[in-house]
Amino acid sequence: MRAVVMEAPGRIVIEDIDAPKVLDPTDAVIELAATCICGSDLWPFRGAQPVDHQYMGHEYIGEVVETGPAVKKVAPGDFVVGSFCISCGECEICRAGYPSRCPVAAAAGDPFIGARSNGTQAEFARVPFADGTLVKTPAPPSPELIPHLLAASDVLGTGWFAADSAGAGPGTTIVVIGDGAVGLGAIIGAKQLGAERIIAMSRHPQRQALAREFGATDIVEERGEAGVARVREMTGGYGAHGAVEAVGNETAFQQALGCVRPGGHLGFVGVPHGVSLDMGQMFGAEVHIFGGPAPVREYLPQMIDLIYKGEIFPGKVFDKVLPLADAAEGYAAMDQRSATKVLLTV
Amino acid sequence: MRAVVMEAPGRIVIEDIDAPKVLDPTDAVIELAATCICGSDLWPFRGAQPVDHQYMGHEYIGEVVETGPAVKKVAPGDFVVGSFCISCGECEICRAGYPSRCPVAAAAGDPFIGARSNGTQAEFARVPFADGTLVKTPAPPSPELIPHLLAASDVLGTGWFAADSAGAGPGTTIVVIGDGAVGLGAIIGAKQLGAERIIAMSRHPQRQALAREFGATDIVEERGEAGVARVREMTGGYGAHGAVEAVGNETAFQQALGCVRPGGHLGFVGVPHGVSLDMGQMFGAEVHIFGGPAPVREYLPQMIDLIYKGEIFPGKVFDKVLPLADAAEGYAAMDQRSATKVLLTV
Repeated sequence: MRAVVMEAPGRIVIEDIDAPKVLDPTDAVIELAATCICGSDLWPFRGAQPVDHQYMGHEYIGEVVETGPAVKKVAPGDFVVGSFCISCGECEICRAGYPSRCPVAAAAGDPFIGARSNGTQAEFARVPFADGTLVKTPAPPSPELIPHLLAASDVLGTGWFAADSAGAGPGTTIVVIGDGAVGLGAIIGAKQLGAERIIAMSRHPQRQALAREFGATDIVEERGEAGVARVREMTGGYGAHGAVEAVGNETAFQQALGCVRPGGHLGFVGVPHGVSLDMGQMFGAEVHIFGGPAPVREYLPQMIDLIYKGEIFPGKVFDKVLPLADAAEGYAAMDQRSATKVLLTV
Repeated sequence: MRAVVMEAPGRIVIEDIDAPKVLDPTDAVIELAATCICGSDLWPFRGAQPVDHQYMGHEYIGEVVETGPAVKKVAPGDFVVGSFCISCGECEICRAGYPSRCPVAAAAGDPFIGARSNGTQAEFARVPFADGTLVKTPAPPSPELIPHLLAASDVLGTGWFAADSAGAGPGTTIVVIGDGAVGLGAIIGAKQLGAERIIAMSRHPQRQALAREFGATDIVEERGEAGVARVREMTGGYGAHGAVEAVGNETAFQQALGCVRPGGHLGFVGVPHGVSLDMGQMFGAEVHIFGGPAPVREYLPQMIDLIYKGEIFPGKVFDKVLPLADAAEGYAAMDQRSATKVLLTV
């Protein structure tokens, strides 16, 4: 089968390798229906994170083709959506709603999909702890649903978690920093959680349009201190109830922190690169901070339900579709920001 | 009247100054029944924070002797407990439960008691925004209640807020780092909030005894990595549900963070000095973080009620009592850790 490999920063190739098989009793192997490129894949692509012949991809939907003897909840023929974080689904941490930090999966060496396999930018993928990681869809999806379900696998789930961590709820004003696919997903999440006002910080016309379509009530083009001042002005001087940080750099963090009122919440899901927070500043800000790898599995049932009901259309974040064989072109497009998010057909 | 002044690090003197008067319509002037020295007063005392002829003290209880024309909720003759944070009690931030960051008080130049007056290590004190800052007790207190009410003014309230921020609740295990008066107050708070297991990290025999009396179920003497390992071992390898950081230095922060399970909570109330958190580490830890100046006013009604009912005895943190005139001796005792907390009679 074919699989995408990042040989070195900026160098994407397609390899022909053996298809994965069930290795552990809790494994499932799925045949990908579609996969995609993540914003976080750009960190190693740009050389901001070390990489050496790495199989890529952690977003996936597809049909189960083989299961280990201990798998009870999914079976060959089932269509499934999975999370990039592997989770047993049974330990205290999973049951408390944080499957993204399942210690059982971590102890087995499988905290993230791809850690011991070929990733999901491939024709087939092995999913460890299938019962705790995959969610079966109510029916095989129509082709129109494929992009939406694929978005749920990471960007929507991650954005939703960020909106939840930012305290989105009835009557709240939520600011979203980062107009990439995760930030756009956060807008859907914030709206579903009941936020009254959703302020998207973006200068990109197409992304602004999608942000509005997803539920943003306001757009702020200013950045940094000017952006913070604008948000404070829009919120009676208090600041927003919560902010989503979906970038991962120092500027975005400070912008997010500056937008939140005392007692408010900052949810961060951009993988931080070189960001440190002065706790004296945090003490003075008195803002709740929470983030990390999103427990997407926790939100999947609700997201799948909304997608099947036609209430949310998160797949609109895919503005470029390419065959798996042209993955390199997809990486380049996202790197150059000519595409927000690239779907790869398998 | 007499007032305590820190002239320079390590130099405490008593000055004779004019008693404060009502300046603004929302002011009250109170006659102190007792006051005390805070652990945070030691930062400037030790030269870790600049200080130049500063009036000291921010913990206070006493009788109202004068009120401005706009004060409606307290009147001369009332016995009151106040918070060190001044709050209007009416803005969105106060109503949301964060009076410690009231923007109305801050705009008027009065975020903390003492900012525009002589502090509360004195015979009289001016309290701005009296209606939003002071809480009237149900009756004039008996002498036995004085230390307990005084503790509520800061250390108990701050500890309670920290326990709340650490997610203390039924079924939870909470670790308390810092065995000073605030840490001990956090144990009372955690117990009242329903924590099932309270682990106090302390090597000090008298403080360990008081920690147990206040509700600690376990004592851990190990520090740093060994302390973290011990807590993890005691919590099935997961870590505690929450930790209170009541010290304010890097070591204590890292110890607190290491003790908390993914998805858990870290409440910090030690004023951070030179602490910065790497957000990459935080992303991996996936722990909620919240702290700052405690919104003590929010917890005062409940704390006062429990004190009058004889259910909590937070005043036991005072292990030295001195007259105001001997404040210098009190500072020295706390600096040398021969006293946990010093009450000053007025």
